[in-house]
Amino acid sequence: MKHFLSVNDVTHPDELINRALAFKQQPVPPHHPGKGRRLGLLFFNPSLRTRLSTQLAAQNLGMEVIVLNAGRENWTLEFTDGAVMDGETVEHVKDAARVLGRYFDVLGIRTFPKLQSRDEDYAEHVLNQFVRHAGVPVISLESATLHPLQSLADLITITEHRPHSRKPKVVLTWAPHIKPLPQCVANSFAQWMLAWNKAHLVVAHPPGYELDEQFTRGADILTSQMEALQDADFVYVKNWSSLNPYGTTPAVGENWMLTSAKLQVTRNARVMHCLPVRRNVELSDEVLDSPASLVTEQAANRIWAAQAALASLIESI
Amino acid sequence: MKHFLSVNDVTHPDELINRALAFKQQPVPPHHPGKGRRLGLLFFNPSLRTRLSTQLAAQNLGMEVIVLNAGRENWTLEFTDGAVMDGETVEHVKDAARVLGRYFDVLGIRTFPKLQSRDEDYAEHVLNQFVRHAGVPVISLESATLHPLQSLADLITITEHRPHSRKPKVVLTWAPHIKPLPQCVANSFAQWMLAWNKAHLVVAHPPGYELDEQFTRGADILTSQMEALQDADFVYVKNWSSLNPYGTTPAVGENWMLTSAKLQVTRNARVMHCLPVRRNVELSDEVLDSPASLVTEQAANRIWAAQAALASLIESI
Amino acid sequence: MKHFLSVNDVTHPDELINRALAFKQQPVPPHHPGKGRRLGLLFFNPSLRTRLSTQLAAQNLGMEVIVLNAGRENWTLEFTDGAVMDGETVEHVKDAARVLGRYFDVLGIRTFPKLQSRDEDYAEHVLNQFVRHAGVPVISLESATLHPLQSLADLITITEHRPHSRKPKVVLTWAPHIKPLPQCVANSFAQWMLAWNKAHLVVAHPPGYELDEQFTRGADILTSQMEALQDADFVYVKNWSSLNPYGTTPAVGENWMLTSAKLQVTRNARVMHCLPVRRNVELSDEVLDSPASLVTEQAANRIWAAQAALASLIESI
Repeated sequence: MKHFLSVNDVTHPDELINRALAFKQQPVPPHHPGKGRRLGLLFFNPSLRTRLSTQLAAQNLGMEVIVLNAGRENWTLEFTDGAVMDGETVEHVKDAARVLGRYFDVLGIRTFPKLQSRDEDYAEHVLNQFVRHAGVPVISLESATLHPLQSLADLITITEHRPHSRKPKVVLTWAPHIKPLPQCVANSFAQWMLAWNKAHLVVAHPPGYELDEQFTRGADILTSQMEALQDADFVYVKNWSSLNPYGTTPAVGENWMLTSAKLQVTRNARVMHCLPVRRNVELSDEVLDSPASLVTEQAANRIWAAQAALASLIESI
Repeated sequence: MKHFLSVNDVTHPDELINRALAFKQQPVPPHHPGKGRRLGLLFFNPSLRTRLSTQLAAQNLGMEVIVLNAGRENWTLEFTDGAVMDGETVEHVKDAARVLGRYFDVLGIRTFPKLQSRDEDYAEHVLNQFVRHAGVPVISLESATLHPLQSLADLITITEHRPHSRKPKVVLTWAPHIKPLPQCVANSFAQWMLAWNKAHLVVAHPPGYELDEQFTRGADILTSQMEALQDADFVYVKNWSSLNPYGTTPAVGENWMLTSAKLQVTRNARVMHCLPVRRNVELSDEVLDSPASLVTEQAANRIWAAQAALASLIESI
Repeated sequence: MKHFLSVNDVTHPDELINRALAFKQQPVPPHHPGKGRRLGLLFFNPSLRTRLSTQLAAQNLGMEVIVLNAGRENWTLEFTDGAVMDGETVEHVKDAARVLGRYFDVLGIRTFPKLQSRDEDYAEHVLNQFVRHAGVPVISLESATLHPLQSLADLITITEHRPHSRKPKVVLTWAPHIKPLPQCVANSFAQWMLAWNKAHLVVAHPPGYELDEQFTRGADILTSQMEALQDADFVYVKNWSSLNPYGTTPAVGENWMLTSAKLQVTRNARVMHCLPVRRNVELSDEVLDSPASLVTEQAANRIWAAQAALASLIESI
């Protein structure tokens, strides 16, 4: 695997899933595949689970990790080719990426969308510039439109808890939030689920919250949450903002918060969320604190997802 | 030892003191007791000595350490059960603690008091929520009301420098400062000294600066600094704010700054302070730069205190 | 080597250069010279390359590294002897340095000039106080007036690319910037080049941008950029602010940005810059993206410079 930016970098999700589950059984491989390999984690935006789980994964492999908080260091990069840099930006991504590519064997990048221009965010300009100039494998720690490490952890979790007798029904349902959030977790989950092709994916959201078809094509898309939940085996709850007008939050008539009452129509569905979760806004306490909830397990699986991705990148060096 | 939150978690202080002094002789134990163990250090408030000494201690044991600056990451936790999280808080401590408990074998927490409500601070709500939900040993890196790693280092320092012929007289004396400080270092020192029971503890402070009796019961309490200093073997200097009205700084008539002149009445007392110290406000330069001062030694002993506590926690896993 | 603060701490630059080039061939020495040695890196100011390259160098040697961002921790030190600390400063450098000297075997310090008082900055008060009180080797990570790790990397880069048949001509040329910068990279480069004495150094700058003679004495100093560039083998581009009036940026008539057209008069000169660079202000894109540019190589050599300096400091412990 050359980079880890989306499911398109992966031969088949099951390869990575199986690799991750093997690491979960034996976290520290005896041959130290990462020994002497250096991982730089560059955060343009805050991170908790991704930061920790990726560091833990790299340590398990024997890699040396250095975390760089670009946002807090006031290290403002220029991304425009040919710019006359007489303003706020202090370094061009060309120069930054070239140097980081000399310092590290693998580079992790986290960069959020600005949610102001769909074209700009969906071009993944920041991530792509690092890929173009660094000359080393790049692993996405969540980008403007996708979050592949989260999705891989999600598939690992579903693999562990799926029914063996039938193809499970997985519902990705929109949920309320208090501010406009990126589409990346939802985009990425749909993209991975459909590439994996081992479950029946239903996406449910209020009118006006359609996701980009490039990621959801092949899923059933409903605007009735209750219809979607019928007979579900897994319910993945997540908020996202509108794609058009981009980054807005059109009013929603009904309350889409997931509750235990709503789960009655499912097949004892297990409930997922990428965290952090706004309790009693996105999901009710009773759901999150019930045995139906997989959210802690899902977050714990972030370690094994990152470890599988890093191990595959290291092999390509 | 299950947790390290106060002296009450300790069978006897001498066990930890002896263990710490053994580490001081041999910092890196050959059997690497911490190998494969992961320590997460979560700082809701700034830290210098605690941050460094705990990392160094963990490294000596062979643990892997990750530091998380919760305060600076704008990671605002919700601590109220049942809260509808439609405000500023982005994650409930339940979810955060559960995930951190999956990422780490031992969790360190630093959380300062707000100094606004005595009931709230003395309930140690933040620390206790992590203990309740993380499911792994928790080590206090200074909490709202106590600072056990500091106190253990203090007892180590007194052990090293105490007279052998008699029970030493130890005076904890209030000192001036320019702003309201927590009571935790003073509370904790009194609590450990009295549990240790190998010295005669005298607490001296101006009227209005009484500490909570749950920590000082058994000590002699004086409001005359000079009377307290008489024949002292150790003088521990520390400022704290008032308990009632909580967090205030009632006016003090005399100057309680510790000077060399005042030390004349002691038995060549050694002088302690947890640092950082406001020179020429809490203590005079001449005291701090004299051979009587143990403050650097005391700060250096923080490493061995943390190492003894961590080693004991690891054994309980 | 007792400290690493300037070229004056070095017996001969070639010793360190050769050591660095050996590390470039074999980054991880098999005998782990840094094993059990602890490096504390204290940043009072932001850093990217220095922070990363010094950590990587220390890891190669087997040292344990802890990074402390003093600036962002709001850890405001007092530097005046005898100060009554009733103001903004929370800890005296005496106490801080003494404790850090107990925690670490080697201490790295980054401290920028304030550019307000030449006397204050050129006294290197911050760095010198740490040297005076820490009691362990101190390595400068860039100080108010010098940047020896950068200069050593610069000499390594010149050594790798110099002509073998003759003493190269090296031109340090001032370049435009949008704000007042320290003189330290330029001071330090001149100081190291002249001590090294293996090249002909020419310093070119507009009138009013004279550097301190203590660093440039022995170099040819010109105020015509084109005259300086004639037959140059290396062109080092760097902005700095005026020494008198200190920290100002007197108007410059011509455009001193380095372009490919200007390089025509050189002997196919290689171009250097310490990064970060303001593209199309200090240097044109065409120069930076041409094979003439050594800037990425130069930044990569920061690792080997730091590793050579640290290895030499460790030997003195």
